[in-house]
Amino acid sequence: MNQITAICPGSFDPVTLGHTDIITRASKMFSKVIVAVMPNAKKQSAFTPEERAEMLSKCVANLPNVEVEIYDGLLADFVDLKNAKAIVKGLRAISDFEYEFQMALMNEKMNKNAETVFFTTRAENLFLSSSAVKAIATKGGCIKDFVPECVHDYIATELAKKN
Amino acid sequence: MNQITAICPGSFDPVTLGHTDIITRASKMFSKVIVAVMPNAKKQSAFTPEERAEMLSKCVANLPNVEVEIYDGLLADFVDLKNAKAIVKGLRAISDFEYEFQMALMNEKMNKNAETVFFTTRAENLFLSSSAVKAIATKGGCIKDFVPECVHDYIATELAKKN
Amino acid sequence: MNQITAICPGSFDPVTLGHTDIITRASKMFSKVIVAVMPNAKKQSAFTPEERAEMLSKCVANLPNVEVEIYDGLLADFVDLKNAKAIVKGLRAISDFEYEFQMALMNEKMNKNAETVFFTTRAENLFLSSSAVKAIATKGGCIKDFVPECVHDYIATELAKKN
Amino acid sequence: MNQITAICPGSFDPVTLGHTDIITRASKMFSKVIVAVMPNAKKQSAFTPEERAEMLSKCVANLPNVEVEIYDGLLADFVDLKNAKAIVKGLRAISDFEYEFQMALMNEKMNKNAETVFFTTRAENLFLSSSAVKAIATKGGCIKDFVPECVHDYIATELAKKN
Amino acid sequence: MNQITAICPGSFDPVTLGHTDIITRASKMFSKVIVAVMPNAKKQSAFTPEERAEMLSKCVANLPNVEVEIYDGLLADFVDLKNAKAIVKGLRAISDFEYEFQMALMNEKMNKNAETVFFTTRAENLFLSSSAVKAIATKGGCIKDFVPECVHDYIATELAKKN
Amino acid sequence: MNQITAICPGSFDPVTLGHTDIITRASKMFSKVIVAVMPNAKKQSAFTPEERAEMLSKCVANLPNVEVEIYDGLLADFVDLKNAKAIVKGLRAISDFEYEFQMALMNEKMNKNAETVFFTTRAENLFLSSSAVKAIATKGGCIKDFVPECVHDYIATELAKKN
Repeated sequence: MNQITAICPGSFDPVTLGHTDIITRASKMFSKVIVAVMPNAKKQSAFTPEERAEMLSKCVANLPNVEVEIYDGLLADFVDLKNAKAIVKGLRAISDFEYEFQMALMNEKMNKNAETVFFTTRAENLFLSSSAVKAIATKGGCIKDFVPECVHDYIATELAKKN
Repeated sequence: MNQITAICPGSFDPVTLGHTDIITRASKMFSKVIVAVMPNAKKQSAFTPEERAEMLSKCVANLPNVEVEIYDGLLADFVDLKNAKAIVKGLRAISDFEYEFQMALMNEKMNKNAETVFFTTRAENLFLSSSAVKAIATKGGCIKDFVPECVHDYIATELAKKN
Repeated sequence: MNQITAICPGSFDPVTLGHTDIITRASKMFSKVIVAVMPNAKKQSAFTPEERAEMLSKCVANLPNVEVEIYDGLLADFVDLKNAKAIVKGLRAISDFEYEFQMALMNEKMNKNAETVFFTTRAENLFLSSSAVKAIATKGGCIKDFVPECVHDYIATELAKKN
Repeated sequence: MNQITAICPGSFDPVTLGHTDIITRASKMFSKVIVAVMPNAKKQSAFTPEERAEMLSKCVANLPNVEVEIYDGLLADFVDLKNAKAIVKGLRAISDFEYEFQMALMNEKMNKNAETVFFTTRAENLFLSSSAVKAIATKGGCIKDFVPECVHDYIATELAKKN
Repeated sequence: MNQITAICPGSFDPVTLGHTDIITRASKMFSKVIVAVMPNAKKQSAFTPEERAEMLSKCVANLPNVEVEIYDGLLADFVDLKNAKAIVKGLRAISDFEYEFQMALMNEKMNKNAETVFFTTRAENLFLSSSAVKAIATKGGCIKDFVPECVHDYIATELAKKN
Repeated sequence: MNQITAICPGSFDPVTLGHTDIITRASKMFSKVIVAVMPNAKKQSAFTPEERAEMLSKCVANLPNVEVEIYDGLLADFVDLKNAKAIVKGLRAISDFEYEFQMALMNEKMNKNAETVFFTTRAENLFLSSSAVKAIATKGGCIKDFVPECVHDYIATELAKKN
């Protein structure tokens, strides 16, 4: 009987329907899923790591085997820290694949247990990204179809403020 | 406690070290792994489905939760037949990704349970394919570094014959 | 006032919902659209060019500015023959793009009037191809979601026969 | 008789021969073409939107059915505002394709009338981009072969100043 | 003082202006270039290896450090046989790159001396391939701009016959 | 007898085992190799051009035909300045290829002598980049397997400071 913990890392700035779809599907495949909010020092973010974690927690409230954490270190170390066996990533496009492939090889080089598994993004989410959501909201567009309902108002209000 | 069965489909004509690496890693992540030899009517094969299944069985003999079957139908149906939850594929390259991505969307369209997960091929197997093995053996080259030891002599002899 | 004729070339073996979607959208953008069934000597086909043209004619019956023709020559010549200004192609994926891009450069080299314009396949048709339809029908799968309703029974019956 | 208005969006910072080639070809296919200068808040620009619009206006002076406008909103909204039916983009490379494909799906999701059509960049412009022009001029290189003659001196002088 | 022999392998069925461009450029960089006609058992060819070698010999007659040979074995072995240090390949597109990259890794694995170097195809040859030449000639199109002048009549006549 | 000088351009911020592998292989193929440290004004760098040149000099100390220089101009001009015939670049991935291909076409356009040749990165270095090295060191990870031994301590110490 396998008891596998998987890590879902990302910056989630902000969370989209693409993210929650991957997390939900991962939660059906693994005993436990830890969503890891990785602050990205290099990119300027719209939401603080704490705000992102809070949004995610709301979105996964109905998934009992999913937890949300902020981790500002190496993913390969986080895998060990949590005694995890899998890193779960969603793939939308070729450029995602190429980058994630390099990350997966790198993480495996740094930690033999850091096995990366990729899920395919559903067709209807292929165009979806946090950057696109930010760009649309910033220009006054409607993001209702792109982010989880439970955090839509919060995201829309905050991005409007930050404009 | 998750009890997930995963399917590893392929033509395995013949099996390579790339295949056995993916199967081994999948066997650590899922409760049960069924390697499905899919005859490909369109491509001319070097080995019969039965020969391929026999080779694979030798290669996975030490993995108690792995089984080998021949299935000449739709993968989406096989997933249901076996009550599986995951389809496991190894990715080597961009073109693999693109093709497999389309297959994954198609299979999910045909069977909501047919969740495809991708493993990355290890760096040292990136150049490896069944076609390459056949091409090398056909030209009299040595394939020792490319196929599992337990089936090397058989593959080399058969491919030499078929030349 | 522009009076542009566009050519929609393809093998359409058989026609899919992806094809009819592109043809319909092209018919809204151009004064006249000629769907050109190009026999492909290199690939073995499931349907004769005449069968394919007949299927297409049924599918475009409600589009008054669309015609269907069989043409077994160079596309660059057909453009001139029809006094057309545009070649319309749908793109699903990177490999489509790369191949079509080379074709577009080649056609433009051979005929300065042969301007190729690409439409993006809708997300829900990204996984769809004539080969996939043939593969599924051949294995006894249901192709209802993949081909136009008016030709579904014909395609399913014919492909079942040819199995 | 089709009366189609098409939008050619971009940042044009600065305009290159690649841009004017696409605009010219689009002007032959559509009744009216509106070149939309989209300010990009995220990228630091070398020229103001007004400077870019002025350069473009000079370059299209001989194309009676082409207009230039600045628009700092959502492209999907601009399409409606102008009662347009097509968005025209030039494609140079795979990465262009992938990004533009996502944008096209997104825009179509936001506005059913926002049909994106892609033109292929001519072979001799494949290496050409606004960034390359800026990089070359900044290092003192000659950009005569890369930008329209009527704005060459202006671009070269301005980029030299901004160095 | 470096005395490097390079191998230019290919099927050259038939030779195109893209091939002769790469061979010419390689001849300026290496002391000696051996063009290796590799028969490809899997693809049906239009010309025999001997016909291809003869065409190539005519095309390189003015390049004193270039030789043409037929070799029906492993490229990695041919490198040793000729005491070569480099394999030269032209790249047109992403799919070329991906395939050639795998071949290069494979060849290096089989022969540590088999260093592959890639040249970029010139922009005007990007759309050019032996298959395209065959397809055009077969449909009665003019291939004058695509193959070396000295072999044009021969190629055109032979392909017309084989139609 | 060919006396070819090749340029190995890059930002080397910092040097990795991928860089030194390419430089070493180039030094076996060309009479002279000049490693050109190109300051990149657009990207913020972790090391000054002088620091990078010094690191590189240590790494190539045992390669008598390799020199290191800083050059803050157009690569196409540097090729002429050094009377070089080749630009050498390592390729890891599709996105590398696409960008480098455009650069190669551009450089050839600007200087007919600027022939770019690509080497393939070895499989074990495919995941390796200066950015990855910086990201890992910044998060406190070990970079021993990724940078040349002779500069490891220096790089690790400097990146730790800059964190």
